[in-house]
Parts: sequence; C-alpha cells; structure tokens
Amino acid sequence: MEVMQVLHMNKGAGETSYATNSTVQTNIISTAKPVTEEAILDIFNHVLPESVGIADLGCSSGPNTLLVVSEILNVIYAKWQQLGRPCSPEFRVYLNDLIGNDFNNVFGSLPAFYNKLKEEKGSEFGPCFISGAPGSFYGRVFPSKSLHFVHSSSSLHWLSQVPPGLASKDGRGSWNKGKIYISKTSPDCVLEAYSSQFQKDWSVFLKSRAEEIVGGGRMVLSFMGRRSTDPRSKESCYQWELLARALMSMVSEGLIEEKKVDSFNAPYYAPSPEEVKFGIYKEGSFILDRLEMFEIDWDGGDGDGDNYDATPTSSTLSNGARVAKTIRAVVESMLESHFGGDVMDGLFQRYGEMVGNHLAKTRAKYTNLVISLARKV
Amino acid sequence: MEVMQVLHMNKGAGETSYATNSTVQTNIISTAKPVTEEAILDIFNHVLPESVGIADLGCSSGPNTLLVVSEILNVIYAKWQQLGRPCSPEFRVYLNDLIGNDFNNVFGSLPAFYNKLKEEKGSEFGPCFISGAPGSFYGRVFPSKSLHFVHSSSSLHWLSQVPPGLASKDGRGSWNKGKIYISKTSPDCVLEAYSSQFQKDWSVFLKSRAEEIVGGGRMVLSFMGRRSTDPRSKESCYQWELLARALMSMVSEGLIEEKKVDSFNAPYYAPSPEEVKFGIYKEGSFILDRLEMFEIDWDGGDGDGDNYDATPTSSTLSNGARVAKTIRAVVESMLESHFGGDVMDGLFQRYGEMVGNHLAKTRAKYTNLVISLARKV
Repeated sequence: MEVMQVLHMNKGAGETSYATNSTVQTNIISTAKPVTEEAILDIFNHVLPESVGIADLGCSSGPNTLLVVSEILNVIYAKWQQLGRPCSPEFRVYLNDLIGNDFNNVFGSLPAFYNKLKEEKGSEFGPCFISGAPGSFYGRVFPSKSLHFVHSSSSLHWLSQVPPGLASKDGRGSWNKGKIYISKTSPDCVLEAYSSQFQKDWSVFLKSRAEEIVGGGRMVLSFMGRRSTDPRSKESCYQWELLARALMSMVSEGLIEEKKVDSFNAPYYAPSPEEVKFGIYKEGSFILDRLEMFEIDWDGGDGDGDNYDATPTSSTLSNGARVAKTIRAVVESMLESHFGGDVMDGLFQRYGEMVGNHLAKTRAKYTNLVISLARKV
Repeated sequence: MEVMQVLHMNKGAGETSYATNSTVQTNIISTAKPVTEEAILDIFNHVLPESVGIADLGCSSGPNTLLVVSEILNVIYAKWQQLGRPCSPEFRVYLNDLIGNDFNNVFGSLPAFYNKLKEEKGSEFGPCFISGAPGSFYGRVFPSKSLHFVHSSSSLHWLSQVPPGLASKDGRGSWNKGKIYISKTSPDCVLEAYSSQFQKDWSVFLKSRAEEIVGGGRMVLSFMGRRSTDPRSKESCYQWELLARALMSMVSEGLIEEKKVDSFNAPYYAPSPEEVKFGIYKEGSFILDRLEMFEIDWDGGDGDGDNYDATPTSSTLSNGARVAKTIRAVVESMLESHFGGDVMDGLFQRYGEMVGNHLAKTRAKYTNLVISLARKV
C-alpha cells in the first residue's frame, strides 16, 4: 500500500465525508489554540516581515481547513494592529496535504473566505494568497526559508508507510495476525517496527521543515499520542483493537478473507512524549518550547465535563455510530483499497456497535499531544 | 453569470473532457515554444537567482498542464548547465486557474511527473515545488516580486465578465439578439461593450502581474486574436456564429427559449494587435519584446500543410464533430449553467454538423496572438 496514493479523508460533503464528520478534529484545533497563539506572537516579537509565510500540513478538506487559516491570520493581524504598524503584511498561505486530498473542495470555498476576510478586516488587510501545496510532508514541500509559521493538526500520527518488518521473513506470514495496529498481545518485534518507522519519519519531517522555516520561525503540531511509555496501552490502541475485532467478526462469517486482515497494518503511530522529544533532540534544528497533553472523548467532547453517563442507553449506542462515522471518514480510503468497497458499510456498522458497547462501559478518550517548536536561528 | 464560478474546462478524462479534447491547445503551445524559449533565455542572461519563480496562468487540467511546465523547466535547466553552474536553482512552479478547475486531476499526476523529472535530469536537478494557485488572473494571484517567468496559453481571450451594456437600458431587451458573441450584424454598441471590457481586463491583468514579476522578468502569452482591425471579421467570430445558429435552431424547435439565447453572451474577446499594444503602452510596466500571429486550423492543424481537401467527405464531416468536441470541452460549463445540462448533447450534435458543413466549404482557422513582454526594471 502506497500511503501517499491511498490515504485521504473522505471527499465531498456527504454523510460519510470528512467535512461532515470532523468535530473531533475541530475540538483538537480549538484546544490547541492557546499554544498556537503564543507561538505566533513569539515570532513577531522578534521580526516583522513584509511577507509572512504560513503553512498548514495535512489541511484536509472541509470546515477545519479554513478555520485554522482564519485563526492564524486573526492572531497575526491583531499583533500588527497592536504594534500600530501602518500596513498589513502580505500573507502567503500554503495548504498542504497528500495528492488524494480534495483540494477542489477547499478551493471552491475560497471566494467566500476571501469575502469574509475583507468584510471582517477591511480593505487594509493583506493581500492574502492561499495556494495548495500537494505532497507528503515526509520530504520537502516548500521553498527554502519561505515559512514563518507551520501548523499541523491531526496529521502527524500518520506514518509515511506501513512499517516494514511486520511480515515474517518469507513474506507470507505476519507478526501481527488478526490485528491492524499495535495491540495488547503484539510481540515486541511489532512494537519495534512501529517505533522505528516513527523515528525515521519524524526525523525526515523535522529535517525538511528545518530547511523551509526561517530562523526564529515556529511550528505548532498536534497529533494523537499517549501518556504511557507502553505503546500497548489502551489510550493509543483501543480504537484500532475494536476495528480489528470488527474485521475479524466479518472473517468469521466468511465476508472477508483472514489473510487480508493479517496483511493489513495501519500506517499510524501514537508516540509518547519521550519519543517525540528524542527525535527533536537528535535532529537538532528545533528547540522544544512547549509540550502539552490533553484528552479528547472519542465522540469529540473535551474530556473535562462531568456530565458523562456510562449507563448503556440508546444515547451511548448512537454515540458508537457517531464515533464510527468519524473514524470512517478518516480511514475508509485506506481500508477500501485493501478490503474493497463492498464490505465498508457492514464493517462500520459492526464497528459502531462495538464502540457503542465499549462507551457504555467506559468513557473512552484519545490522548493528544501538542508541541510548539522554534527553529534555531 | 459569474465567470469566476462558472468557467472551467470539462473535468476528468472522459470522452467530453478537456483532457482528451485539447490538441488545438497543445498545438498552440508548441507553435509558441520558440518565443517561450527566447524569453526564458533572455531572463537568465541577466540574473541567476537561487530560486526561480514560474507561473502558468489558466493551467487547466490534462496533458497540456504539465507539458508546459516540463518545457519551461527544460529550457531553464539547460541554460544553467550550459553556464556550468555548480548547482541547480530551486524551482517554484505555480499553477493558476479559476477555482472551478480540476486541480485534483492535475495534482494526481504530480508523482509521475516528479519521478520523470528525476529520471530525466538526475538527482542534481531542483528541488522543484509545484503548487496550485486558484483565482482569477484579473487581480492579484501571487506574492509581490515572486515570479521570474509567467506563461499563459489559450486563456487570456476569456474576459473577467460578460461585458455590461449588452442588455438594453430597461434590462429586458438585448442589443445582441440571437447572437452570443460579436457577429457580422452586431450594432456598434456591442462592439464597444466588448472592446471596452477587454481594455479594462487587460489593464488589470498587466497591473497585477507588474507587482508579481521581478524587474527583468518575462511573460509569454498566447491567446485567440485577429489580424483584422474589424472585430466583426470571420477569423475571430465565426465559431461563435455557428454556435449561435445551433442554439437558434433549437429555439425554432422549441427546445430552448429564445430569450435564453438573447440573454447569453460569451465572456470572450479576440483582440487585434493594436488593441493589445495600446493596453501595454497605457499600463506602462512592460516592454513588448515580440508580437507574432499565427493560424491554427479549427481541427488543430497548424494551418501550413497543403494536403487540405475541401470536398465534403465523411472525413470533413467527422472533422466537424471533432471540432465540436474541442469547443464543447471548453465552453460547456458556461453553456450548461445558462441553458441547463439536458440540451448539451443535442446542441453539440447540431454544432458539429454545422461546423462539418462549413469545413466542407472552407478551411476554417483561428488566429492566435503570441506576445513576449519584459517587466521594466
């Protein structure tokens, strides 16, 4: 599976699209907002460029894409006004995602976005040029020293490829039978394969951005992670565990071949803070200014509220279906290319039920990491 | 009709798509190639930037899009090698078109394009960053002083809007009844409305590019035009004349409402060399280095060959269908939004027959202008 060709959020604006099933990601963006603001203000305490370069990596399509851009522009422009600068900087905004992303959809919403900018900020603002920069962020995407601020949300947990080393040496067996990510029962070699792919990718990512970001420029990255040092911990694996179970239940009914499940592994990794820090230290171009962790309910809540009711009700069960839709919008492109489109409805139906049962027993949460990095001068 | 929202080449790669019906435009690109080469070489006789900015305006989607980019990169890189420069410049390539363009299709062909570049030019070449810059070129699209070379082919004959002043003052009548562009019988006010819209757009275009192109940078633009000073001349109008007749034949059969035809006018203008030169002189930022005119057969030939047989045969009739497909791929998005999708097959069927009959009588040709401009230092 070529991740670069296959991975994309579900296109369009229909029922199973990412655009209509991305509130979890919206909440992650807004939780990370104070860190984003702080980082941006810190850049412009030191320099006031005439032309500001901004990139969003893994921009996807749908309401989140331009929400992020809008928030970033707001903070920068407010800073300019606060400093009493006579004219607005020029904004160069680069939206990056893999080539399978629905850029047509994003571009289609630009005229309304530009109009809103003009209305809200007046004709003094900008100019602002938004362009699409397709390609894998595990490699160079932007010209040298062209960026002041890089943002990425809910993207860096995707690896550049399925870790090699999950198949046995003769290529026929699998070390991860019946599973599709690290699981409680995964042997050490599976953990090592995943962790080593993460370190490789993370290093290439940092090295690439180091060439693109000006000295003193900043990055704010948020992605799935874990608090525990143990990569088998439920907080980072259990959504995949249930998806594997849903697949295996279809295997037991002869709807999917078992070897298809054995040969599928998610190109995903939820790192620990230590792994993230180690990579930054080793690559050497960035200073880690801030690392925070927060929880997000599987169904999109911020994990803080006390009004959670774990009694199995129709509400928790339909929560299951909602969570399944959120996950479907993100992973369907990959699963479909491996298992075929016919089994998708059945799979996510089962998955929704399993998630619903799980939510009836416990309040399931994702752990998110948000880090703020400064490019060394 | 909002041209910016409605105008785009037919998407995808199917039978009526622009991608499979764009040989006329391919031939225009290759006829203008020597002018493009000359202009590029002239830039780099004076400067050798580390990072070269290139834009293609109205890039569309399909084989022509990356063909142009490939030719431009070839010429620049050959120059660098000829000069014995130790390292390749960084290439920033911006593909511009209106937001309705099928950018997803263009981006989908980038991995193969990057691989081919690497194979043909070796690992020394680049890096090369290709991005999509959606928006109307009748306004700013790119950051200030970011471009060295701007290319545009088969795009600038599109106006930013249908000229106002084609409807009578009470808004109910039309000065261009039964026609959809300037025609032999058009009153002077129609000519003036078109010509004045062209001058306005041309001036905004030049002014916008003047801010984006560095001093000494170049533009090569090719577009439909005419040799004659008379805008009613057949060379620039007759393809629209026949399309109007096809529409009116459907009116006579009650398939289309007559007032629908009266209220439709193409946002198109084929200027004379004098009009083009006047606009350049008036705007003042560019020097006209070269202006050439050439003919292209309606069916894509270069207008030079002697093997043209005007006897009405099945071949000239099927030429008619082919020409109709070429035109359909370009104008269908506009016509569909005005007349509805249901009548499109019938319309282009009739149009193909009319074109075929015309080609059986005469060798119909478009006149193309190609101009090379240098940004004043």
